[in-house]
Amino acid sequence: MPRAMTSRGGFYVGNGQVQIGESTPRSPDAGEVQIQVSHVGICGTDLHVLHGTMDHRVTVPQLIGHEMSGVVTELGPGVESLETGEKVVVRPLISCNECPACRTGHQHICQRLSFLGIDAPGALQDHWTVPVDIVHLVPPHVPLETAALVEPLAVACHDVKRAGLASGESVVVFGAGPIGLLIGLLARQKGASVLVTDINPTRLDLAAGLGLDAVAAGEVDAAVEALTGDTGADVVFEVSGSAAAIGEATNLLRTRGRLVVVGIHSEPHPVDLFRVFWRELHLLGARVYEPEDFDEAIALTSEQALPLDRLITSVVPLENLAEAFDELQSGGKAVKVLVAMGEKR
Amino acid sequence: MPRAMTSRGGFYVGNGQVQIGESTPRSPDAGEVQIQVSHVGICGTDLHVLHGTMDHRVTVPQLIGHEMSGVVTELGPGVESLETGEKVVVRPLISCNECPACRTGHQHICQRLSFLGIDAPGALQDHWTVPVDIVHLVPPHVPLETAALVEPLAVACHDVKRAGLASGESVVVFGAGPIGLLIGLLARQKGASVLVTDINPTRLDLAAGLGLDAVAAGEVDAAVEALTGDTGADVVFEVSGSAAAIGEATNLLRTRGRLVVVGIHSEPHPVDLFRVFWRELHLLGARVYEPEDFDEAIALTSEQALPLDRLITSVVPLENLAEAFDELQSGGKAVKVLVAMGEKR
Repeated sequence: MPRAMTSRGGFYVGNGQVQIGESTPRSPDAGEVQIQVSHVGICGTDLHVLHGTMDHRVTVPQLIGHEMSGVVTELGPGVESLETGEKVVVRPLISCNECPACRTGHQHICQRLSFLGIDAPGALQDHWTVPVDIVHLVPPHVPLETAALVEPLAVACHDVKRAGLASGESVVVFGAGPIGLLIGLLARQKGASVLVTDINPTRLDLAAGLGLDAVAAGEVDAAVEALTGDTGADVVFEVSGSAAAIGEATNLLRTRGRLVVVGIHSEPHPVDLFRVFWRELHLLGARVYEPEDFDEAIALTSEQALPLDRLITSVVPLENLAEAFDELQSGGKAVKVLVAMGEKR
Repeated sequence: MPRAMTSRGGFYVGNGQVQIGESTPRSPDAGEVQIQVSHVGICGTDLHVLHGTMDHRVTVPQLIGHEMSGVVTELGPGVESLETGEKVVVRPLISCNECPACRTGHQHICQRLSFLGIDAPGALQDHWTVPVDIVHLVPPHVPLETAALVEPLAVACHDVKRAGLASGESVVVFGAGPIGLLIGLLARQKGASVLVTDINPTRLDLAAGLGLDAVAAGEVDAAVEALTGDTGADVVFEVSGSAAAIGEATNLLRTRGRLVVVGIHSEPHPVDLFRVFWRELHLLGARVYEPEDFDEAIALTSEQALPLDRLITSVVPLENLAEAFDELQSGGKAVKVLVAMGEKR
């Protein structure tokens, strides 16, 4: 396939604005591949970028986007693990391989991590050139729309793995946004009993619509008691970032229960450390994903183990990028908005 | 040995007061033993009792004390695992064996735990009758004074076990009281590099006197950097109960580092949950001990692996109990004060 000569992209340009512009396709160097991007999901992190809270990391204009699917169009020298025409997704992390985190096997949270779409050009362009070692093959039968959900699903896979979740355990998820919903669906698929809660009734409706047990904010205590008696929950996933959720979470857990911190807590929030001591609780952070989490997410997608397509609430062309952001910020029923790049496939 | 007919004891009587009085020796029932108590250590928890902060749990007058050593004087029916005359220590926990914590193997933090010396009569009496299954044999060559430190050492064994500490790791201990010092000594004995910090210069001197690397409160950051470069500490033990220590602790840890919450945080303190997320930290509560922790503490004591005797700053007769409490509260150089019961042995 001849190298693409023009490419359009979606740029964050500062001051809460996105713009559509030209991006220059780059021919892949050794160890790289060029991908024709098919779909790009808009993520909570993209909203943070838009709101300027990541301006210290983002050099404008920046090509944003990191949840994607696409098709390989060109192989750089030496690349033998992929072929042109294959469906792929990208794990958008580039690690330094030298820092203490990398040296101890935690490259995914490298201390100098470059996150594509924030720290370096992202997926929201027709043609994207990336290192082959962050590209994962997707089976041909998986629709490219669905494949764009692999990245957020890999987040959920990482979070559930960090929790050490076992079949039959009881789980509470605080926050029914896309990641909270995916964690809830995945935990249920792994045999857990799952309660999902949110302060937003629309999001609770979405959770219930996916068949999850959705519990209003004030009723979580009673729901956990109904589910576990006087035992408490095995695992709480905190995906809301709210101080109130953290306050409740420690109280809901059983002896030696696990609280997985997934949400962004932008300032220190009070934690009941007496309860942590008294019940020997375990709080642990979970951030992004490791390669095996992408592998698991692709396998789950391939097997149609989860109703991923039901999270896709709209698919819009790149021209409508600003409107897509508006829709996500409106607090309505939007869960996952995908941007469809290029021609329809 | 004939059954003892009289026994003196040290009672908490409320209103910040202790008194010496008569306790009635009880003949052991089936599965129990009577112990002639030799030495009883005074613990921070005893100070909490004295200060009334445990009045909701303590029925006065109550025989206090739970760090002890003694000699078996009488066996109840069916007891075959011990003989009279043997040196013993008591693990002062009685579990319900029915609650969710007990049912999942965590009897040591039973949800209806009876802690002897708080919830039920304790060790500070000449003759103490307890279930044999909480009695641990001490080798004959171990002095009874030293054996009275087995209980706090078992706390340290539990805390270090919860941390999953490995040889060669870097450790920071916040709080240089008896438990903090024992954790520091034990971690060093297990091959860790240990820094101990405290806001109290006298306690820092004590730590330094034990050969530990004692660091003033404002210099911990620099000391961790000198020890670990840009990596951060593997493990922090929070034994101070202070909000400031928790604030610092998360900042000192390496990626996936562990923060063990040992101190009593009487109200929720702010925790940098963003750091917990960003570095995928682990916070773990650690409370009292399991039977194996007592076994380890006895083995360490038997092998003289740690300079336990150097923590004993005075040994006083029961008559001086009130003065012993005063000494501990004075903020001076007292670390571990032992009460010697009965006649000198």
